[in-house]
Amino acid sequence: MRADADWMAAAIALSQRGRPEAAPNPNVGCLIVKDGRVVARGWTQAGGRPHAEAMALAAAGDAAHGATAYVSLEPCAHASARGPCCADLLIAAGVARVVVAAQDPDPRTDGQGIARLRAAGIAVDSGLLIGEAQAAMAPWWSRATRGRPFVTLKLATSLDGCIAMADGSSRWITGAPARAHAHLERARHGAILVGRGTFAADAPTLDVRLPGLASRSPQRLLLTHGDAPDGWTALAAPDAVDALPIDSLLVEGGAGAAAAFLAADRVDRLLLYRAPILIGAGRRALGDIGLGDLAGAHGRWRPADSRMLGSDRIDVYERIRKE
Amino acid sequence: MRADADWMAAAIALSQRGRPEAAPNPNVGCLIVKDGRVVARGWTQAGGRPHAEAMALAAAGDAAHGATAYVSLEPCAHASARGPCCADLLIAAGVARVVVAAQDPDPRTDGQGIARLRAAGIAVDSGLLIGEAQAAMAPWWSRATRGRPFVTLKLATSLDGCIAMADGSSRWITGAPARAHAHLERARHGAILVGRGTFAADAPTLDVRLPGLASRSPQRLLLTHGDAPDGWTALAAPDAVDALPIDSLLVEGGAGAAAAFLAADRVDRLLLYRAPILIGAGRRALGDIGLGDLAGAHGRWRPADSRMLGSDRIDVYERIRKE
Repeated sequence: MRADADWMAAAIALSQRGRPEAAPNPNVGCLIVKDGRVVARGWTQAGGRPHAEAMALAAAGDAAHGATAYVSLEPCAHASARGPCCADLLIAAGVARVVVAAQDPDPRTDGQGIARLRAAGIAVDSGLLIGEAQAAMAPWWSRATRGRPFVTLKLATSLDGCIAMADGSSRWITGAPARAHAHLERARHGAILVGRGTFAADAPTLDVRLPGLASRSPQRLLLTHGDAPDGWTALAAPDAVDALPIDSLLVEGGAGAAAAFLAADRVDRLLLYRAPILIGAGRRALGDIGLGDLAGAHGRWRPADSRMLGSDRIDVYERIRKE
Repeated sequence: MRADADWMAAAIALSQRGRPEAAPNPNVGCLIVKDGRVVARGWTQAGGRPHAEAMALAAAGDAAHGATAYVSLEPCAHASARGPCCADLLIAAGVARVVVAAQDPDPRTDGQGIARLRAAGIAVDSGLLIGEAQAAMAPWWSRATRGRPFVTLKLATSLDGCIAMADGSSRWITGAPARAHAHLERARHGAILVGRGTFAADAPTLDVRLPGLASRSPQRLLLTHGDAPDGWTALAAPDAVDALPIDSLLVEGGAGAAAAFLAADRVDRLLLYRAPILIGAGRRALGDIGLGDLAGAHGRWRPADSRMLGSDRIDVYERIRKE
């Protein structure tokens, strides 16, 4: 029999399927298990409804009776015009136990979903793999708890940290697998941003060039004090992104825009693609980020992932915050 | 029973113990196995004698009779004033089989060791894990087959490829485990080189600051057209290193010296330490390496290793050569 943590990890993996379409609702995953077997699975659908639990319970039918439900976020306790609350659905289905990763920070639930389940005699465990669950819904979590989008900075560099030759040419530094991965990251974000220089030099389309995912091309932002061209939204400063109705932003370049977001401490995650090449006197990845001394640079980033993508390596780092 | 490749891998691991003291002789490893058990081990001793086989056979005694000897380099066929040749020692000991990784490129042996064993009725297999064996004795192999030392370039950078702050401060970018690893690499090299700028700014001692290894501090080279200070040897250009009696060189910096060796295509291995920090507008790792276009940068480096050293990551790349 697999352990609770294994089932929860599977529920969290399911939650990723709702990114980014579940926005502005949280992308949740739900796994219903009975006698050591998966009875049903569910995840938040596009636009935020049906919720993961509703999907899984509908698929499970009578098999949910006496089963255990693993959910990456606390079941909601607030009824909506779009459907009953998930806590009530779980009670009505007769599940015996609910395992929750993260408690819902939404004040309309925030513990009340768990309380409602327990009041109905259902055993509830909470807090299992909470960090993994929060990471899987990082955009929604960021907006819900900090009132701002989750920002990822992407850099594609040579081994010596250049993003282009001195003349600006950068096609290609990374190989096809890394570029496909970067396009998948675009599809998972609500908006993408470039700076004025990158826009002028490349006029990037920033679309998602992956089969079946072209429709997921995100909103395009230009970091500028001036006007934005058709199809683009002007952003005057990194902080201004908070006011936009998006939960996640991918900063694609160039060095000035990347530095502006870092200097404002508005980057939550680094996505570093590194090709096995050396460029030498090329263009550097970052401009001035306002670092005072080396000691101040330490303790800010923790490695989250590292793997090969073809002949390139991707390293993912997450900002360490005390919040 | 373990397979031949497992035993050979162990013999190759033993060969590393002779680095760099075996120089100018090859650092060889030898494992003697009988009935599925290790009977004896040996590796080339300081100064190049005794050879690995002589060490292992002496340790094995009568147990070598009927055993299999795994050697990372073909046993020598040339007698010396310092001892009999290893092929004869293996024959006299009565080993039943010899497994060889790499054939000896030294014209005094070059297949004659294997021929001598076979003529004595010993079964010989050759070529097992040849790439691994060559890599383990890369300095000697480079000198023997190319007439020049094996050159490693070390870079310790931030995630954005800086080797220092704009004001030159670089203490510390990497953490203690990465710095200890770099000192171990120093101990494994015959010489270490820095450029004029690094020398002037840091006056580095380039010694090995590891307990028990201080005596292994290598020869210090300064890349300069001028004179070298006491204790240092002046090197006018990267190619000039060929004339020095060393098999391995570690290029430690700075950006100019590193670029000079890369531009001359005299770097065989990259040792990249990367700390989880961002610096921004700091000092870059490399100067101009004479790259004409991006396409020319590809296909030159292959990943050989990647691992964490504390909170830093080390990536090792090897130059792909068609020779």
